[in-house]
Amino acid sequence: MDKAGTIEPKEPKTARGEATRRALLGAAEKVIGRLGYAEASIGAITREAGVAQGTFYIYFKGKDEVFSELVRDMGRNLRHTITGATAGISDRLEAEREGLRAFLTFVAGHPELYRIVQEALFVDADAYRAYFSTFADGYRQGLEAAALGGEVRPGDADIRAWALMGIARSLGERAVVFGKTTPIDDVVDSVYDLFVHGLKR
Amino acid sequence: MDKAGTIEPKEPKTARGEATRRALLGAAEKVIGRLGYAEASIGAITREAGVAQGTFYIYFKGKDEVFSELVRDMGRNLRHTITGATAGISDRLEAEREGLRAFLTFVAGHPELYRIVQEALFVDADAYRAYFSTFADGYRQGLEAAALGGEVRPGDADIRAWALMGIARSLGERAVVFGKTTPIDDVVDSVYDLFVHGLKR
Repeated sequence: MDKAGTIEPKEPKTARGEATRRALLGAAEKVIGRLGYAEASIGAITREAGVAQGTFYIYFKGKDEVFSELVRDMGRNLRHTITGATAGISDRLEAEREGLRAFLTFVAGHPELYRIVQEALFVDADAYRAYFSTFADGYRQGLEAAALGGEVRPGDADIRAWALMGIARSLGERAVVFGKTTPIDDVVDSVYDLFVHGLKR
Repeated sequence: MDKAGTIEPKEPKTARGEATRRALLGAAEKVIGRLGYAEASIGAITREAGVAQGTFYIYFKGKDEVFSELVRDMGRNLRHTITGATAGISDRLEAEREGLRAFLTFVAGHPELYRIVQEALFVDADAYRAYFSTFADGYRQGLEAAALGGEVRPGDADIRAWALMGIARSLGERAVVFGKTTPIDDVVDSVYDLFVHGLKR
């Protein structure tokens, strides 16, 4: 990222270029997730990706740019995954349930996500904020529409968006950072019960 | 912290010693919260506390020890605050409401809490894990007792504990990291509605 905070990812022109760029992002996910930002070197990333070190600079200006793009890319992939899992579900609570299942499944397949996003607060605070704000904005709009459509109780959609996002984030962390191995379907059932009924007996 | 992971905080023998130790922890909270762990120096911490640099070493072996103790101390203070705010409340949902209010009020008064705890994942992962596990354990026991006592619906108390902890964490971060200024009482009312009724219309 340059000092003005703008990013101009070089768009790969060919399918092969795009495959190499994706391989570099996947390698950055593994290496930075494992070693942390400070210890991860561009050499380790290109070795992990199986490309020459010079190839890196065709796609990214440096480690800061690949890190920022990685955070953005993981957010996009995650949102895309959740959108795919909930497409065609008209009932909002049902969509919450399947969205949470898709989220927890994604997290299980990307165990480095938490460290990387969490480290972004210190390495690229704008990318960190954008990651959660983008989620919250989409979430809020969906909850507003569901309240207007009478699918959920009326209520402050932004606070609810952050509350539900917090539930998902915490249960993902419980699994990948705290190593609790409750099957995803059981976690989803418990949370769905909370969504539908609340806690009151 | 020494290599074995044990900590032997030197117990200040006098009230004055305890006051100095607390001043150093308060200064560490401000300085490390503002600058991050790597940039925060012991000199900056002692200047902030208004004590001579050598005094630091009467209380802590080094920056790593003051950081670990700070994370532990913030967790203890926060739990103490929540316990105080919910003491004598027999209804569990009422206790959830007042606990959340106390949490969000504590966070507003300790805006550096988020950066510090989040950075602990990279500086002292054991302190990070202990911070959340200790919360989750207490939370789970409270929810188990409430379910047994018929105050809340039966359900997996550990998953609920992490879900509710996630709600609080997310709404605190919404305020201090994302700068959303919804009054605490409004946030608490919205979440309480979710606790009592769920989302279903």
